[in-house]
Amino acid sequence: VNGYREVMTSDTLGSIGELAVLARLFPRLPGASAALLGPGDDAAVVATPDGRVVITTDMMIHGPDFRLAWSTPHDLGWKAAASNLSDIAAMGAVPTALVIALAAPADTPVSVLEQFADGLRDACSALAPGCGVVGGDLSVSSTLTIAVTAFGDLEGRGAVLRSGARVGDVVAVSGVLGQAAAGLALLFEQAVVDGVPDAEAAAALKRRHPELLAAQLAPRPPIVDGKNAAVAGATSMLDLSDGLALDALRVARASGVGIDFSSAAVGSRMALDGGEDHSLLATFAPGVPLPGGFRAIGAVVVGEGILVDGMPYDVHRGWDPYAGWNNAAG
Amino acid sequence: VNGYREVMTSDTLGSIGELAVLARLFPRLPGASAALLGPGDDAAVVATPDGRVVITTDMMIHGPDFRLAWSTPHDLGWKAAASNLSDIAAMGAVPTALVIALAAPADTPVSVLEQFADGLRDACSALAPGCGVVGGDLSVSSTLTIAVTAFGDLEGRGAVLRSGARVGDVVAVSGVLGQAAAGLALLFEQAVVDGVPDAEAAAALKRRHPELLAAQLAPRPPIVDGKNAAVAGATSMLDLSDGLALDALRVARASGVGIDFSSAAVGSRMALDGGEDHSLLATFAPGVPLPGGFRAIGAVVVGEGILVDGMPYDVHRGWDPYAGWNNAAG
Repeated sequence: VNGYREVMTSDTLGSIGELAVLARLFPRLPGASAALLGPGDDAAVVATPDGRVVITTDMMIHGPDFRLAWSTPHDLGWKAAASNLSDIAAMGAVPTALVIALAAPADTPVSVLEQFADGLRDACSALAPGCGVVGGDLSVSSTLTIAVTAFGDLEGRGAVLRSGARVGDVVAVSGVLGQAAAGLALLFEQAVVDGVPDAEAAAALKRRHPELLAAQLAPRPPIVDGKNAAVAGATSMLDLSDGLALDALRVARASGVGIDFSSAAVGSRMALDGGEDHSLLATFAPGVPLPGGFRAIGAVVVGEGILVDGMPYDVHRGWDPYAGWNNAAG
Repeated sequence: VNGYREVMTSDTLGSIGELAVLARLFPRLPGASAALLGPGDDAAVVATPDGRVVITTDMMIHGPDFRLAWSTPHDLGWKAAASNLSDIAAMGAVPTALVIALAAPADTPVSVLEQFADGLRDACSALAPGCGVVGGDLSVSSTLTIAVTAFGDLEGRGAVLRSGARVGDVVAVSGVLGQAAAGLALLFEQAVVDGVPDAEAAAALKRRHPELLAAQLAPRPPIVDGKNAAVAGATSMLDLSDGLALDALRVARASGVGIDFSSAAVGSRMALDGGEDHSLLATFAPGVPLPGGFRAIGAVVVGEGILVDGMPYDVHRGWDPYAGWNNAAG
C-alpha cells in the first residue's frame, strides 16, 4: 500500500493476529488517570466523579477522510485523538479517556499500527495530559477505518451547548482558521500525480508549508480552552469541523439568533469556509474578558443566519469531505 | 449489493447526504433513560450516578463479521447492540447507553439504514430496557462497518473481572452454548452458492432452523443475568465470544487456576468450541444458589488450563472469525 513503502518489517496484522498485535500496541498507549480498570477484560471502568460523562464518537475512513500517501500513521493517530478531544472540549469538559476501534487490511505492518499508537499517545500528551486509552478493538478490513469514542468530565459545570448564544454576545474563536483547508488545497493541487495521491510530493509540501500541512494532517486544537471558556461563562460553544460559517450557522439556528462576523477579524474566505479547523467557536456575554486564546471575531445579532460586516452571507456549504476526492488510490 | 435487492427506494446515503439520513434515523432510535443530553451537539452527556462508567467498544466489518446475503439490516442492528450489551453485562453492570458509528457505501438505501436502526431499537428494548442511543456518526465507506461503544452502570457494586475465580468455585453459564456456531456452520454448508453467500438459501435455512440461525444472526444474550450474577457474588465473569473453552482459558489464566468442565453438562464439542454465543460464563463460591438462568457446567480446580471430565482439553483455538471465509462477495 502506498505510504507504507518505507516500513521494513515482516510482521503484519494478518500474520501475527489481532491479539498479538494488541499486546504490542497497548504498552505504547497512554494510560488514563481516570481509568479504574483498563484494557484486558470485557470492558473498562472509568471514574466519573462528576456523576456525568461526556461522550462523542467519530469515524475516519481511508478515502473520504484521509489518504495514506499524505498522512503518516503517526498523523492518523494524532488526528483521530485530536478531533475527538476537540468535541469533548467544545462541551466545556476536560477529556479523560478514549477507546479506539481500528480495522485495517491484513497486510498492514505491525510497525504502522505502532506508529499509529504513538500518534495517539503524543496527541493525548500534548493536548490533554492525563487522558489516555482505556480500551480498543482491532479487526481486519479492506478499508482502513478508525473509530474513536472519547469521554470527558464536566467537573461540576453545566455543559456548554450550541443553543445558548444571546443577542449582544461577543463571538470569539480559539485556534486557527482556514489553515487545515489551505493545507488540504495544497495537497490536492500539488500532491496528486496522475490522479493518485503522491507521498513524495506530500513530503515536499510538508517541508515547504509545515504549518498549513500540520493543520490538516495533525491538528493541534486548543483543548484546554474548552474548559477555560466554560469557566468564563461561555453561553454557547462548538468545535469547528465543517467551516466557520456553516458551524456558526448551527449555533445561530440552535440559539434563534444571527451571527455577524467582522471580515477584518476573520481574515479570509478560506477562514470562513474552510473545514477541519478543530478550533473552538464560543459566545460570551458582552464585557466578559475573553479567556485563554479566544479572540473576538463577531457579534450575536437579532435575526437569523450568518452575516459578514452586516451583510447576509450565503452559506452554501462549508467544507465537503467528498468534494475533490476522485476515489484514486492512496 | 446482494441482500439489498428487496428494498424499493431511491433515497441512498450518497444521494441525500449524511445529515439528512441522520435526521431520519435518530427518531427511530431508542432514547436512553440516563441521557442528560442526547444527539445533536458536539457530544452527549450521560448520567453516571455511581461515579464510574463501564465502557466497551467493538467493530463489525462486512466480510469477516457478517455477510449481507445472510443478515438482514435489522439483524445487523440487533447483533451490533446485543454483542456490546453482553460485554457490559459481563462486568456485572446494567447497560445504559450506546453510541454508533456506521460507515456504508454511498449507494446504501436509506431504508436499509432505517431497518438497521430498528434492529438497534428492538434489541435495546428486548434485552436492556432503558438503554438507548445517545450519539452516532455516519460516513461513506466502500466497506460496511459498524462500530458500537456501549456504557453501563455498576450501581455501586464492584466490577466482576476475569481474574477472581477461586479453586472450588462452581463454573456456570447463562445462555445458549454452540447454537451460534451451529447456525454459522449451516450457513457455510447450505447458503453458499458457487462460492458466494446466497440470500435465498439463507432465507430457506432460517425457516428450517430458526433457533440456530437466530443465535448466529440476532443473538439474545442474557443481559439481565450479568447484574444477577454480580448481586449473587460471582467471583469472575466474561462474555462468551470466542468459544467456551477458549474464553474459559482466559478466566483460568487470569485467575491462576484450572477449569474442569462436565461433558454431560456442556453437551457437545460445538458447545465447547463454537464462538459468538454471547452467553455469560461466571464462577460462584460453592453453595451459592445460582441466580437467574445460570446452570452449573464445571468446577474451578487446582492447576492450569481447561479440562473436560478431569482430562486435559487441548484448546487449539475457539471459533476463528476468518476460518472458512473465502472473501467471496455478499
